Amino acid sequence: MSEPKLVVGQSGGPTPVINASLAGVLDEAVTGRRFPEVYGLRHGIEGALGDQLIPLDGLSREQIDTLARTPAAALGSCRRKLGPEDYGRVLDTFRRHDVHWLCYTGGNDSMDTCERLRAAAQQAGYDLAVYGVPKTIDNDLVETDHSPGYGSAARYWAIVTQEVTLDVASMRTYDRVVVLECMGRDAGWLTAATALLKRDERDGPHVLLTPERPFDAGAFLKAVEAALSRTGYCVVATAETIRDTSGQFVAGATSGADHFGHPIVTAVGETLARMVSQCLSVKARAVKPGTLQRSSALHVSPVDREEAREAGRTAARRLAGGRSGEMVALLRPEMGPYRCEYGGVPLPAVANRERRLPSEFLAPGYAGVTAPFLAYGTPLIGPKPEPYFRLV
Amino acid sequence: MSEPKLVVGQSGGPTPVINASLAGVLDEAVTGRRFPEVYGLRHGIEGALGDQLIPLDGLSREQIDTLARTPAAALGSCRRKLGPEDYGRVLDTFRRHDVHWLCYTGGNDSMDTCERLRAAAQQAGYDLAVYGVPKTIDNDLVETDHSPGYGSAARYWAIVTQEVTLDVASMRTYDRVVVLECMGRDAGWLTAATALLKRDERDGPHVLLTPERPFDAGAFLKAVEAALSRTGYCVVATAETIRDTSGQFVAGATSGADHFGHPIVTAVGETLARMVSQCLSVKARAVKPGTLQRSSALHVSPVDREEAREAGRTAARRLAGGRSGEMVALLRPEMGPYRCEYGGVPLPAVANRERRLPSEFLAPGYAGVTAPFLAYGTPLIGPKPEPYFRLV
Repeated sequence: MSEPKLVVGQSGGPTPVINASLAGVLDEAVTGRRFPEVYGLRHGIEGALGDQLIPLDGLSREQIDTLARTPAAALGSCRRKLGPEDYGRVLDTFRRHDVHWLCYTGGNDSMDTCERLRAAAQQAGYDLAVYGVPKTIDNDLVETDHSPGYGSAARYWAIVTQEVTLDVASMRTYDRVVVLECMGRDAGWLTAATALLKRDERDGPHVLLTPERPFDAGAFLKAVEAALSRTGYCVVATAETIRDTSGQFVAGATSGADHFGHPIVTAVGETLARMVSQCLSVKARAVKPGTLQRSSALHVSPVDREEAREAGRTAARRLAGGRSGEMVALLRPEMGPYRCEYGGVPLPAVANRERRLPSEFLAPGYAGVTAPFLAYGTPLIGPKPEPYFRLV
Repeated sequence: MSEPKLVVGQSGGPTPVINASLAGVLDEAVTGRRFPEVYGLRHGIEGALGDQLIPLDGLSREQIDTLARTPAAALGSCRRKLGPEDYGRVLDTFRRHDVHWLCYTGGNDSMDTCERLRAAAQQAGYDLAVYGVPKTIDNDLVETDHSPGYGSAARYWAIVTQEVTLDVASMRTYDRVVVLECMGRDAGWLTAATALLKRDERDGPHVLLTPERPFDAGAFLKAVEAALSRTGYCVVATAETIRDTSGQFVAGATSGADHFGHPIVTAVGETLARMVSQCLSVKARAVKPGTLQRSSALHVSPVDREEAREAGRTAARRLAGGRSGEMVALLRPEMGPYRCEYGGVPLPAVANRERRLPSEFLAPGYAGVTAPFLAYGTPLIGPKPEPYFRLV
């Protein structure tokens, strides 16, 4: 007879701390022995369709700590939208292996999958408790102050934006404009994070293009020109998904849609750099770190890593305590210094919804972010790096 | 009466340790008081044309240490090829300010500028001693085992290639190919560095495209397919300047040439990613960190930083000792564990020449690097990062 099992899975684009959340689940489930057996789903819900379960009970505390600082999804991730017939197949696998608890880390699509699976199990009379752990560098999940993963990707952008600014400032008699291409789907949270270590007008970003503001080429070029005349160089931060006033993507190339129907947009940085070169006759470069912004271990925010791990622990404890159909929410007390508390929200409140950057976080036009955004984002990225030397 | 002066300048593309070399010069010149006065040239030789000299004698030891860990060129850099009439203008500025020593950090173009300036001063009967400090992330300077800047950019690529590999491996049921676009002009040193932390076939890069090997689309796609069938995903590392068998750049867009006539090539990563998507029907992404690969302070090799600083100290000591017309060379003893020694080579031996990756450092086709390259490159990037957790 097999023991009743917890399975844990990872879904959607990885973050540098998605494994910290897995480590948090294992802190409670393996080290804390809250469940009879613990397995991992290989490539998220696809592992349940393909019957790929990996035993995790043998992991040592040291291995779990190493896992917590490893970027990308150690179990494998996926972007799989389940079809109506798939839920039964997943439940068949769970039944065969005596799986009665599912802990799933992902974004709003994954929370939808969790909720549908929970409902399918209930309808089938199968005893399955489901708990979601939020995860996205995009920070677009609703009903949570922020999502694990965002703080580290935000720290990445906050730091590299200042480094790229030093570089272009030092080359301003030659290279004068740099365009940074940021991830973030239809929300500008990550693009806005490029401004978190900006101290004054010499620091980038000087022009901020978010999906929340329609792109107007004339206004954009004017903003770049104004920055050039003020400082001699210009750092542009753009979301990869900006659209013009007619709703068309600005990116030069789009290459279809992903399995959830989200369009895949590429090369907006190259497009804008070319536009600047041609229209303003200054040398412009594009910088597109792509998956580096979600996998750089050296840029992990210690605040984010600890919160991601605690979110995993919270989910495991709540599952063990009999809760189901919820996602962990990260809560920030309204008053006092920054602190994170952990609650739960019903999955249907989160599934398939997205949170965009509120307008009070954006300065007029493409000028950047506001003080309320800095107050929101600064605690999430952890300690400020040591200041650099600035001669001029 | 003004005192005789040393001026120090920075030239060409910045590196994360070009300021460490400046700090090394200041260790001897300011802290060690080897010269009566020390000034910096704003934006390299352009500062001498435009009479922009910055006094540096007031810097404290602490400020010099902070400078040593600051990326980009703190004095400002340039890419300026002097015309025949410019040398006289530079000498006029030097005469006016009593400049009799020049210490200049740069690549092979900058060493040419140094040599011509030295010759022009000699011809004009003006007493000017000139010393070059090597600097390039491209590692294409001749007559030196390696160049300061390379070790840090190589460390950047060695680390991020493994992080990007973890990311694509964890998403292999969806994203399957990543193309990394590396700097390096016409030499593959930096592209080759992507392999410095590869342990086995699961680790990237799986396909390595250097300027030393002509690009053949059919052979490239076969190499990607072979990697996909072996591991399920594929990491391609490409130099931005690869050319096809007819000598044409593979990049989709070229945008003119720089002031030295070197062509500016962009977006080869996007071009190859599109080729893979279209021909092999798998999702492929491009990653182009651009100037991040030469400005990321967190990826600096401690070996490289110390060598860059010592190279600066060596140049200042040799200038103070009466030497001129040389560049510091970094030498590696043939036997025994890695160690760096510092010598000098005549500027004409270095100026305008470039060193490409020798064929014994490249495996056949696009397969990667050889053991001799690993033996060459590994000591330069400093300590290995802590290993990651790998579940499968």
